[in-house]
Amino acid sequence: MQNIPFNKPYFSGNELHYMKQALDRGKISGDGYFTQKCHDFFYNRFGFKKCLLTTSCTDALEMVSILLDIQPGDEIIAPSYTFVSTVNAFVLRGARIKFIDSHPNHPNINEQLIEAAISQKTKAIVVVHYAGMACNLDYIQSLAAKHNIALVEDAAQAMDSYYHSHNGKMIPLGSIGDFATFSFHETKNIISGEGGMLVINNKNYYERAEIIREKGTNRSKFFRGEVDKYSWVDVGSSFLPSELIAAFLYAQLENLENIQSKRKEIWDSYFQKLNGKLPSGIELMSIPEHATNNAHMFYLVCQNDEQRDLLIMHLKKHKIQSVFHYLPLHLSSYYLKTNNIESLPNAEKFGSTLLRLPFFYELTKDQIEYICQTIIRFT
Amino acid sequence: MQNIPFNKPYFSGNELHYMKQALDRGKISGDGYFTQKCHDFFYNRFGFKKCLLTTSCTDALEMVSILLDIQPGDEIIAPSYTFVSTVNAFVLRGARIKFIDSHPNHPNINEQLIEAAISQKTKAIVVVHYAGMACNLDYIQSLAAKHNIALVEDAAQAMDSYYHSHNGKMIPLGSIGDFATFSFHETKNIISGEGGMLVINNKNYYERAEIIREKGTNRSKFFRGEVDKYSWVDVGSSFLPSELIAAFLYAQLENLENIQSKRKEIWDSYFQKLNGKLPSGIELMSIPEHATNNAHMFYLVCQNDEQRDLLIMHLKKHKIQSVFHYLPLHLSSYYLKTNNIESLPNAEKFGSTLLRLPFFYELTKDQIEYICQTIIRFT
Repeated sequence: MQNIPFNKPYFSGNELHYMKQALDRGKISGDGYFTQKCHDFFYNRFGFKKCLLTTSCTDALEMVSILLDIQPGDEIIAPSYTFVSTVNAFVLRGARIKFIDSHPNHPNINEQLIEAAISQKTKAIVVVHYAGMACNLDYIQSLAAKHNIALVEDAAQAMDSYYHSHNGKMIPLGSIGDFATFSFHETKNIISGEGGMLVINNKNYYERAEIIREKGTNRSKFFRGEVDKYSWVDVGSSFLPSELIAAFLYAQLENLENIQSKRKEIWDSYFQKLNGKLPSGIELMSIPEHATNNAHMFYLVCQNDEQRDLLIMHLKKHKIQSVFHYLPLHLSSYYLKTNNIESLPNAEKFGSTLLRLPFFYELTKDQIEYICQTIIRFT
Repeated sequence: MQNIPFNKPYFSGNELHYMKQALDRGKISGDGYFTQKCHDFFYNRFGFKKCLLTTSCTDALEMVSILLDIQPGDEIIAPSYTFVSTVNAFVLRGARIKFIDSHPNHPNINEQLIEAAISQKTKAIVVVHYAGMACNLDYIQSLAAKHNIALVEDAAQAMDSYYHSHNGKMIPLGSIGDFATFSFHETKNIISGEGGMLVINNKNYYERAEIIREKGTNRSKFFRGEVDKYSWVDVGSSFLPSELIAAFLYAQLENLENIQSKRKEIWDSYFQKLNGKLPSGIELMSIPEHATNNAHMFYLVCQNDEQRDLLIMHLKKHKIQSVFHYLPLHLSSYYLKTNNIESLPNAEKFGSTLLRLPFFYELTKDQIEYICQTIIRFT
C-alpha cells in the first residue's frame, strides 16, 4: 500500500477547458463571465440572494467586518474551536472576541452559552458549521433577532449542507445568517485552489457591499450610468478573484452532484466499517439531529491527547496521514495577551482529541478498508 | 478598421501548460512550486530580497499597513493622483492621509513638498511610480531616513523599470523602499488576471510578514520544526494566490524580455508618430530625467477637460477607446467628509487632462498609425 495522504484535490474534468475559455474571452481579471456563472449557480441551487466570489473565505469574513462597521471596542461572539480567520477578520477592525465553548459531543458552538455573552457592545454572533454540520440556527437566529445583532455563518466547510428547521424545512446552510462565508480552498468539497464567497442575505448591505468590493469606489454605479465618473466614496479593498479561478470553480460546480455523491459514499463506508469496532476510548464523530451531513470530513474523537498522538503515529507507521485540527483560540498566546485565561472544556477536549482521517474523492474502497483495519488493530 | 480597445490581455503561450502542470502536481492552493519559481525569478532578476505573491497589489499594501502597525491617528503621506488602494490600505487601519501634489510636468509626487507634511505622527511615505516611471527616490529615501519613517513604493505599474541613482547606478524600482508592492492585474505589463506581490527590503519585517501571511499563525515555524504545533500569535489574513495564478504568472515572467521589448516598440512608435505633430494644446507625456521607461502606458496631456472630452469623443467616433485616469483623491467625497478642501493644482490638472491611449502587446503598426493619424486630425 502506498502512502495515503490526508487530502488530494480532485479535478472534475472541465477545469482547464473553462480556464482556456476565459483566456479566449480575453478577460481574466475579476467579475467576468465565469464569476457570473458561479453566482447564478449558487442563486439557482441554494437560493443565496447576493453572492460575491472572493479570493478566500478569510477575505469574505473581512468584507463582513467592514460591512458591519466594526469599531475598536465592539464585541463579537464566536466559538473557540475554529480557524483563526473566523475571528481575525474582526480583530483587524478592532473587535474584542468573546469565545464560547463547543457542545460536549460536537465542536459546534453551544448555543445555550451564547446569550450570557451578549452585551451592549456585541455586534455579531459568528457561528461555524464545523465539518459542514449545521449549528442550531433556529435558536441562534432568534437570539440575534432578539438582541438586534447580526448573525454570520462561517460556512467554510458547509457547501451543500442543510439545516432541518423546526418548521420541517431543509434550509441550505449559508442562507440564514445576515451573511455567510464559504471557502473553496483545495481542502474543501468544491475547490478553486484558493478562493471563497460572501453571501449576503440581508438586503440592507447590498449597496455598500458593491462599493467595498470595488475598492471603496462607486464604480458599479458608473457602469450602470448612475454617475458620470466614479470616485472614492468609502473604505474598501480588492476581493475579486481572477476569472481563471472562477472558471475553475465553475467546472467543479457543474460536478457538484457527482462529487457529493462520491464523498457521501466514502463517509458511509468509513462509518459502516468503524461503527462498533473502534478500539477502546475512541469514538465516531456524531451528527447533530438538526443537521445533514455534507461529507466534508470524517473524524474520530480519542480519549485524550496521548491516545491521539499514539494513533497518529500508528497510522503514520502504516503510511496513512491523519491530522488533528484547531488549537482552541481562547488558549492562544495572542488572545491571552489581552484576555484572562478561562476554561472552555469541550473546545479544549476537541483540541486535544479530534483526529481527521484521509478524505478525498479519489480515495478507493481498498484504501478505506486498509485505513479502517489499521485503526481497528490499534491498541 | 475594427474597434481598438484600450487594453487586451496578452497570453505568451505557456500559461495553460503551466496551470496544467500545477494540477498534475496535485497542489493548487498557495505557496507551492510555481509561487517559489516566481519568487526566485524576481530575486534573480531584480534582486528583490523577500518576495511574497499576493492576490492583488491592494492586498500587498494592506500587508504593509499591518506590518507597519498602523494605528488610528497615524499619518501617511501619499500623492493625491493615485488609485484608491494606495491609501485605502492605510485608512482601513485608521490612518489619516496627507495628500501631496504632483510635479507640474509629471503625475509623480512632488518630493519638494513632502517634508512640510511630515509630523510626529507620520508613519510612512508612500510613493507611486506613475506609468512605471521612477519618483525621485534618492531625495525621498534620504527624507524617510532623516525622519525615521518607512518608505513604501507603490510600484503597481512599475515592473521592470529603473531609477538612475545619483551614484550612476540603475536601480530596479521596488528594491529601494522598505516595502514595494506590484500589480499583475490584466491591465499591467506582466499579468495574472488579478494578482500582486509584496517586496520586503527591510529585513526587520521578514519574520512578522511570514506570520501575517499565514493568517496570524506561526505555521511557517511549525513546518521548519521550530515549534511543535502552530497557533494564533498575531493578526493576519489570507494573502496567498492559488498556484494556478502563480503558474500563469510564471509563464509571463519567462517572456518578460519579449513582452517588454514589444511594448517599448509600441511606445517608441507612438512617440515618433506624434512628436511635433500634436494638435494645439495637447502635449506628449514627459519622462523624468532620473527614470527609465517600462512602456507601461502612453498618455497625452490636454489643455483642459473640455478638450480631453472632445478628444475622447473624436477617438470613440473612430472606434478607438481612450481613457482618462484618476480623480485626485483629495477632492473625493470620502476624503472631504473628514478633511478640509485644499488645492493641489497639478494633481487636479492631471485629473482633468491626462488621456491614455490604447496600449497592449498585440497592437499592430497599422493600428498605431491609424490612432496617431486620428489624433493628429483632431481640431
